[in-house]
Amino acid sequence: MATVQTPLAADRPGEMTAAAFAHTRAMTRALCEPLETEDYVVQSMPDASPVKWHLAHTSWFFEQFILKPTLRGYPVLDPKYEYLFNSYYQAVGPLYQRPARGLLTRPTVKEIFRYRDHVDEHMTELLSRRADDPQINMLTTLGVNHEQQHQELILTDLKHAFSRNPLQPTYRAKSTTVAAGVAGPMRFQNFDGGVREIGAESGTENAGFCFDNELPRHRVLVEPYALGDRLVTNAEYLEFVRDGGYRRPEFWLSDGWNTVTAEGWIHPFYWDDSQTREFTLAGPQDIDPAAPVSHLSFYEADAFARWAGARLPTEAEWELAAACLPVAGNLLDLSRLHPESPSDAGMTQMFGDVWEWTASPYIGYPGYRTLPGALGEYNGKFMSNQWVLRGGSCVTPASHIRASYRNFFPAHARWQFSGLRLARQL
Amino acid sequence: MATVQTPLAADRPGEMTAAAFAHTRAMTRALCEPLETEDYVVQSMPDASPVKWHLAHTSWFFEQFILKPTLRGYPVLDPKYEYLFNSYYQAVGPLYQRPARGLLTRPTVKEIFRYRDHVDEHMTELLSRRADDPQINMLTTLGVNHEQQHQELILTDLKHAFSRNPLQPTYRAKSTTVAAGVAGPMRFQNFDGGVREIGAESGTENAGFCFDNELPRHRVLVEPYALGDRLVTNAEYLEFVRDGGYRRPEFWLSDGWNTVTAEGWIHPFYWDDSQTREFTLAGPQDIDPAAPVSHLSFYEADAFARWAGARLPTEAEWELAAACLPVAGNLLDLSRLHPESPSDAGMTQMFGDVWEWTASPYIGYPGYRTLPGALGEYNGKFMSNQWVLRGGSCVTPASHIRASYRNFFPAHARWQFSGLRLARQL
Amino acid sequence: MATVQTPLAADRPGEMTAAAFAHTRAMTRALCEPLETEDYVVQSMPDASPVKWHLAHTSWFFEQFILKPTLRGYPVLDPKYEYLFNSYYQAVGPLYQRPARGLLTRPTVKEIFRYRDHVDEHMTELLSRRADDPQINMLTTLGVNHEQQHQELILTDLKHAFSRNPLQPTYRAKSTTVAAGVAGPMRFQNFDGGVREIGAESGTENAGFCFDNELPRHRVLVEPYALGDRLVTNAEYLEFVRDGGYRRPEFWLSDGWNTVTAEGWIHPFYWDDSQTREFTLAGPQDIDPAAPVSHLSFYEADAFARWAGARLPTEAEWELAAACLPVAGNLLDLSRLHPESPSDAGMTQMFGDVWEWTASPYIGYPGYRTLPGALGEYNGKFMSNQWVLRGGSCVTPASHIRASYRNFFPAHARWQFSGLRLARQL
Amino acid sequence: MATVQTPLAADRPGEMTAAAFAHTRAMTRALCEPLETEDYVVQSMPDASPVKWHLAHTSWFFEQFILKPTLRGYPVLDPKYEYLFNSYYQAVGPLYQRPARGLLTRPTVKEIFRYRDHVDEHMTELLSRRADDPQINMLTTLGVNHEQQHQELILTDLKHAFSRNPLQPTYRAKSTTVAAGVAGPMRFQNFDGGVREIGAESGTENAGFCFDNELPRHRVLVEPYALGDRLVTNAEYLEFVRDGGYRRPEFWLSDGWNTVTAEGWIHPFYWDDSQTREFTLAGPQDIDPAAPVSHLSFYEADAFARWAGARLPTEAEWELAAACLPVAGNLLDLSRLHPESPSDAGMTQMFGDVWEWTASPYIGYPGYRTLPGALGEYNGKFMSNQWVLRGGSCVTPASHIRASYRNFFPAHARWQFSGLRLARQL
Repeated sequence: MATVQTPLAADRPGEMTAAAFAHTRAMTRALCEPLETEDYVVQSMPDASPVKWHLAHTSWFFEQFILKPTLRGYPVLDPKYEYLFNSYYQAVGPLYQRPARGLLTRPTVKEIFRYRDHVDEHMTELLSRRADDPQINMLTTLGVNHEQQHQELILTDLKHAFSRNPLQPTYRAKSTTVAAGVAGPMRFQNFDGGVREIGAESGTENAGFCFDNELPRHRVLVEPYALGDRLVTNAEYLEFVRDGGYRRPEFWLSDGWNTVTAEGWIHPFYWDDSQTREFTLAGPQDIDPAAPVSHLSFYEADAFARWAGARLPTEAEWELAAACLPVAGNLLDLSRLHPESPSDAGMTQMFGDVWEWTASPYIGYPGYRTLPGALGEYNGKFMSNQWVLRGGSCVTPASHIRASYRNFFPAHARWQFSGLRLARQL
Repeated sequence: MATVQTPLAADRPGEMTAAAFAHTRAMTRALCEPLETEDYVVQSMPDASPVKWHLAHTSWFFEQFILKPTLRGYPVLDPKYEYLFNSYYQAVGPLYQRPARGLLTRPTVKEIFRYRDHVDEHMTELLSRRADDPQINMLTTLGVNHEQQHQELILTDLKHAFSRNPLQPTYRAKSTTVAAGVAGPMRFQNFDGGVREIGAESGTENAGFCFDNELPRHRVLVEPYALGDRLVTNAEYLEFVRDGGYRRPEFWLSDGWNTVTAEGWIHPFYWDDSQTREFTLAGPQDIDPAAPVSHLSFYEADAFARWAGARLPTEAEWELAAACLPVAGNLLDLSRLHPESPSDAGMTQMFGDVWEWTASPYIGYPGYRTLPGALGEYNGKFMSNQWVLRGGSCVTPASHIRASYRNFFPAHARWQFSGLRLARQL
Repeated sequence: MATVQTPLAADRPGEMTAAAFAHTRAMTRALCEPLETEDYVVQSMPDASPVKWHLAHTSWFFEQFILKPTLRGYPVLDPKYEYLFNSYYQAVGPLYQRPARGLLTRPTVKEIFRYRDHVDEHMTELLSRRADDPQINMLTTLGVNHEQQHQELILTDLKHAFSRNPLQPTYRAKSTTVAAGVAGPMRFQNFDGGVREIGAESGTENAGFCFDNELPRHRVLVEPYALGDRLVTNAEYLEFVRDGGYRRPEFWLSDGWNTVTAEGWIHPFYWDDSQTREFTLAGPQDIDPAAPVSHLSFYEADAFARWAGARLPTEAEWELAAACLPVAGNLLDLSRLHPESPSDAGMTQMFGDVWEWTASPYIGYPGYRTLPGALGEYNGKFMSNQWVLRGGSCVTPASHIRASYRNFFPAHARWQFSGLRLARQL
Repeated sequence: MATVQTPLAADRPGEMTAAAFAHTRAMTRALCEPLETEDYVVQSMPDASPVKWHLAHTSWFFEQFILKPTLRGYPVLDPKYEYLFNSYYQAVGPLYQRPARGLLTRPTVKEIFRYRDHVDEHMTELLSRRADDPQINMLTTLGVNHEQQHQELILTDLKHAFSRNPLQPTYRAKSTTVAAGVAGPMRFQNFDGGVREIGAESGTENAGFCFDNELPRHRVLVEPYALGDRLVTNAEYLEFVRDGGYRRPEFWLSDGWNTVTAEGWIHPFYWDDSQTREFTLAGPQDIDPAAPVSHLSFYEADAFARWAGARLPTEAEWELAAACLPVAGNLLDLSRLHPESPSDAGMTQMFGDVWEWTASPYIGYPGYRTLPGALGEYNGKFMSNQWVLRGGSCVTPASHIRASYRNFFPAHARWQFSGLRLARQL
């Protein structure tokens, strides 16, 4: 979790924090607009959570870590919420069992929005009254970034729940302006090796917010390498499928092959068996050959790379290539909600479209330290048996992503917008 | 499932059927009045179903077995409902997987009520136009009885879902008029043996509706026996618990002991560990010592009987004792929604309060035959690894129960209102 | 478990008991002759046990229930054996976990045979010294019958273990004298109904040994019925398979259909997919069309009967038909070790060849009582979720079977020699 | 898997290879001397294999990869062995299911030793006839190293199987010369940072055998660090246990905490609950406080390090510290078969005693390539969800281990001799 940094190098950090808070909280509500009450309730698999729960848990975070310790006389709305909406902070108290989140018909959606209102009112008051308190600003910025992560999860979890319903509901109809795109041939762009630095800047004037797992900035040694100048497309992935990719063990890690066999995987997660249609937030749609392949597990990304005679980039290679690029692309702010074909030349699609699996297991950087207390559980304790993904996706808020951002999921996870870019040793 | 019988020995069977249909459909709606939209969605365990699903499935039954085959030009509201709301009729088509019923956020509750309206309108029209068609009357009566079974399940499934929520919601507040009762000492009443008849009357003037599993009426041989004149109470069961009942294998069937050990059972399902409070449809309440113990598995009922030096009655013994009694007691129509202490003298509590586990495995009577077609799947295919329960419970509609009625559940099931009455050989 | 009866109405019961003891113990050893040391060790599924364990457990039985309580100064060979070789007698002490029986490389086979020698010596001494003690004779007879049950299990468990080995080992080569047989058309033989008696005779001069679950002899009411005059053959069962028997849910109990689907059953247990070969104790062999079909679950037997327009007999119907027949047939004493085509006219194959699934769930007879103490656990505690089988199989010792004998297995069990005979209502 | 290198920089590589082959094969037999036939058969958990299987599989390796492709007219002993004793080489053909290895009573132990003789004879002949063939020498060296890995597994798998037996058998009695030791205070020794090289030397005159996962030798960047000069002891670990180590989530990775909770871990694998005794290959023994703690999972090693205010070393840190040390310690050749207290000063116990968990996930080195064909499956396909261990244990052959050696196991594995050494950032 975040270390204490001046959140934005501005004259009035408090105002900017309050604005970010208001914007983010409103954005979450906006994401719920297309939903029926019933859509908030369901947990379609243990990894996912009901929308209701996301709405409550993000409010709980502000209440638990800011309002309760900071605002004297803060009136707790319901003391049971502390237990119900704690996700995994062992230091806060006992946990409501994760796979049973979908059983909570009460509090109702209406009551949870009332809870949000309650937290919003008190947070707004606090932020206006103590606009200069750097600790409150830091924690609020952390809470905002935390809520942005849940904005992405609200959409990926809804997509999963809708996909399981034989009625195949639509979250939002496809924009009529989206035309099937074109993807030129993939070119490999070369990068120098050497001892370089990665990780977020900390303690300098330019440093914005970052999570603790992006720290400390540290030296790494990389050898010369090349990266594909765009993401792997559906068309390219289909070639792999047609070449027997899912039936040939030579491309797969042993764990991956066991998973493919046990689960009966024969194509990416949301493709149908015809391999011409896929489930999207706009319901079932034709697969766009030029768009990036998405909803791959690490195993599939790794196997594809092997089949293609390449490999996945390490996270250092990716970050060094991204460090000089502007943070722009098909992100949540564009409201496409689906990966699209590249529109530019050069190193494209580094931010947005799909999270890019890397070859790097998710562990702490040299010298990594967690914050004391419950917030120390935010990132560090998940540093085993997961892999780093980089770059954000079409449902990641633009203000949330950056070159040093480290996302992580287990190798078998497929319900996120996750794809790949190829790399090569030079 | 029902055989063709004059549904009610009345002058105008069609009118009576239409009235029963209207009454039952309205009753189901009435049961939903205390609910929030969210409460309709959840499936708290694979054996249970969401209220939404019960509402839709009972309508599906009328549509599938009456409207579609009978009403020319009947406009199907949504062809996918045939798949979504089929429970287990293999002959009708593929089945939507039972444990995933809780994933269906759509159709919404509103849409499902619209579906009910649609079916109600066409059924009402059909019943008025063809009031004399004995086949339609028979099938409608069957559908009514089917829906009554789901009325009971709506309440037991809601009770389960609410019990899993740490907020412990209340379905309906406890009636203030209910005082803790008194249960006198249990007395055993003797019954003669001999060759007797059990099963529903069929084909006679007095025969009302019955399910196929109550037929044929047939001869049985019973030896002289005695039955307790009331149900076993919470106080009596607590003695068993305090005597180490759940820790002493000598009282238990081997399967039961394995279940107790694996599941960690130490008291009835909805008791809390203090053994003074239990979860009810009115939320957590004090356990009434004089009320019948409820929510027992067959294993617990059987172990208690063994501990008490008695046994469970066979279903024939129970039915012969019940045959001459009026169908009256603490049933759904009283709206108590919880078992209560006996109020009368004589053989009490034979109907209502709790279903009574019998010593009889659920198999077909000699000469039992299923109906042809999908309706033949109603009862017969479940005749293995289940046990017969008799007498109805506090959530069984009074017009649904009778002396020959055979309910059945697996030996480990506990979420129904299920208790016991003792029996002895003479 | 056995009640106290004069074990054999003879002048010198002690001598006869001692002879039965010596014969049975020697027979068990003889069954082991074809085995390699390795063959004694393996447990190929949780329901089966290693041969070593059978050898030790049957000795433990004599030690636990006779030698320790009766023979003053009896020297226990190893006190840990009491724990290791207790099967399910909770009253004797804690249980070694059943599925881990195959982990016990020690005691070695040699040590277990030493254990048997030790028990045999002391039993022989006891039986000669106290030849007139009716209690010792009764318990020894019980131990002999217990060991005979394990003789059958040794063969069925070995068959299972060998079948799992890709080398498909042979227990004993097929006798060259066995020719493929002929089975005439099945004829139904009629039986009268009425109030009759079943169960073992007890307390009369003619009463031999019986298990407690065969008692008390009691009255039953049967309606007129007919039984097939021979077992259902492989050829007949193959017709069912070819008629889509395993793909048509209408023939199956719901539990059975779920099992067929989940397990992927498409033919009897030991048939191969060509449906022309089956695994036997003589290794893989051609399926004899005229021999009884074997290694069926209850579900398969029941589904076949339904397909054939018939049903399974109740255990009362079977016993009444068998009561007047001599106990003779293809039993262990013939050493065929495989079911064979019928050789006689009349009601054939009632004893031997395959155990016959009945339509009767396994519960206690009216008035059934268990023995006090640990021996009370022998039979009674298994009276749930199992079905009665009658008549013995080709691996049942002839002196072990009788008309009143009740065997029982869960509905899905297939590794015993189990088949069926058809029945019909008249 | 191994790359082609001059196996030993000697004048007569063929003779040395033949000698290593003969020595290793004899050593494996010697390890079996204390065993009874029954001990060869059992598979006590899916991760372990029966000794029989280890004996056969190591012979299969020579047959499959050397004799069949190289020795014209090589007479295969049994063609089914190719299927039965293939471990995980998908390219060789279908796999016999791993968890069923314990079901194979046949081939018998005697037959498997005959198989070993057969392979030994033909290998010896081949090695003498074609002593100069570098490919044969390389593959033989690989087979020798492969067999050494299985020597270690034979002992750890036997330990597991014996530990599960309530009789607690002894593999070999404890040497009477082993006295309880002393471990001085742990001192941290400092190491410089910088760009350094790790991995096996390849293609130089000094290069001996290595596995493919030790290649290529490559540059790494390390920052200054310190390592404990001895392994963590039982006494130190006991302090962690007594300080509530297993009950305090703050020390644990999230996966680790879930495992601790689900499995009920409260101490190292082979300790008993008194925490004074542990199971060893010499049967149950007092825990030596000064000996290294062993049979830890990665999760426990990591949690202990966190509790101790330190961390685990990376594999690069470990290798750089070990590179200049002689390969000596409590290894299999000493026949202690149990970790012991340190006997020297300086950086002790780097080789032998227990495998040391590192902080490094097991992935390929930059530029890592697998061999073509089936041998390419040896190491590379396991590069996910495992962690690197370094240094060998008390059951690792001395000629098998080296500074660059990379062992790997999943984070929850505990049945290997696995412990830890502390590290710190400077």
